[in-house]
Amino acid sequence: MGPSRMTLKLFELVGTDAARPFSPFCWRTRMALAHKGLDADSVPWRFTEKSAIAPHGSEKVPVLLHGSNAVVDSWVIANYLEDAHPDRPSLFGGEGGRALGRMLNWWGDITVVGGMFSLIVADIPAHLAPDDADYFRKSREARFGKPLEEVAANREQSVTGFRKSLELMRLTLKSQPYLGGVTPNYADYIVFGGFQWARVVSPFKLLEDNDPIYAWRERLLDAFDGMARKSPGYDV
Amino acid sequence: MGPSRMTLKLFELVGTDAARPFSPFCWRTRMALAHKGLDADSVPWRFTEKSAIAPHGSEKVPVLLHGSNAVVDSWVIANYLEDAHPDRPSLFGGEGGRALGRMLNWWGDITVVGGMFSLIVADIPAHLAPDDADYFRKSREARFGKPLEEVAANREQSVTGFRKSLELMRLTLKSQPYLGGVTPNYADYIVFGGFQWARVVSPFKLLEDNDPIYAWRERLLDAFDGMARKSPGYDV
Repeated sequence: MGPSRMTLKLFELVGTDAARPFSPFCWRTRMALAHKGLDADSVPWRFTEKSAIAPHGSEKVPVLLHGSNAVVDSWVIANYLEDAHPDRPSLFGGEGGRALGRMLNWWGDITVVGGMFSLIVADIPAHLAPDDADYFRKSREARFGKPLEEVAANREQSVTGFRKSLELMRLTLKSQPYLGGVTPNYADYIVFGGFQWARVVSPFKLLEDNDPIYAWRERLLDAFDGMARKSPGYDV
Repeated sequence: MGPSRMTLKLFELVGTDAARPFSPFCWRTRMALAHKGLDADSVPWRFTEKSAIAPHGSEKVPVLLHGSNAVVDSWVIANYLEDAHPDRPSLFGGEGGRALGRMLNWWGDITVVGGMFSLIVADIPAHLAPDDADYFRKSREARFGKPLEEVAANREQSVTGFRKSLELMRLTLKSQPYLGGVTPNYADYIVFGGFQWARVVSPFKLLEDNDPIYAWRERLLDAFDGMARKSPGYDV
């Protein structure tokens, strides 16, 4: 039995509902695993369960366990899966895609996840058990310097700036259906992870229905037999 | 003699000095040709010489002539060269790199070229013959809605915002020497074309010496036996 046959376990962020994973970074990994046709046992993990992943050298999820390997960080995990399974559908479409994917991963972290965070953050505590909600609120309010409700107060206006910040992607989708080209790859999952996070925790409408990015998101919700769409979330 | 053996001709934007090509888009193509190890005869072209390229179906350069094919637009040219010469070093590093390259091309157009335009625009007319300078000033002042000198007036301050807008690239260069990975590819030339344009026409300092993007630009100035560095420009 080679290493690729060993069981995969994925620590995924959840709240009160253990079947409602919501981290943007864990969703990147979920989609990457599905792309590679790999099954992983999900290990529900909550913000305050630092001790469960500390032995694997991380304070954050996703953490992927593959035999005796603990792989930490969604970007590192994607590279690990690509290298461990070169025979399965490529996550990057070659080394050039992997290299530019690094830059897209920063765009996904800063522009997409960072950009939507203030818009949906106030909706997150309701999905968390009391101690997690308390941890989340305190740590994030310290980061923003104000109550979460104040952060999100003007979101009906500030969402316009977020939508505009996605223009590079919108322009790209004019000439190809996915960031990965004619079929989706990890570049798409980087961005989709953010939107799926928002969909799971917040009823706030991030995209207008006539936005090409809305249509792109719909296609990814349908990917892998509707995996992401079947996960509990708001239909916005 | 197959099509790939036919002479290549490249219409390149120049000003008073026909040996001082300065379009960011023509420089992308120059670097792409060098990457593929291809020689092209340069055909100097000026803003007011629309009639010289009209027969090839374009109002702008670069225009690449390859036998009876006229290829228009730097992105289309890069794809054409990649497909016509699959045996030579890849410009994209695979289909994933090509697909994400489309998005990077928008970033290069909007954030890089668009972002530096107001900083260097006032230095361009001095490099142009009177009729070209007049055309350039009128068309660009109409776009900005004010004199070029006013556009550039606060550039010592506004350059800070431009530098900050390159953060995604700076972060990427923390873990790899080029956007293309361990060696440069068309992704790098997309961005470099903008910097070379600025270097040719303007003494204004766009990058601080300790910026990782400055070091990256130095490496590309040295690429292909110093092709871009040897081209007349300001050493800033």
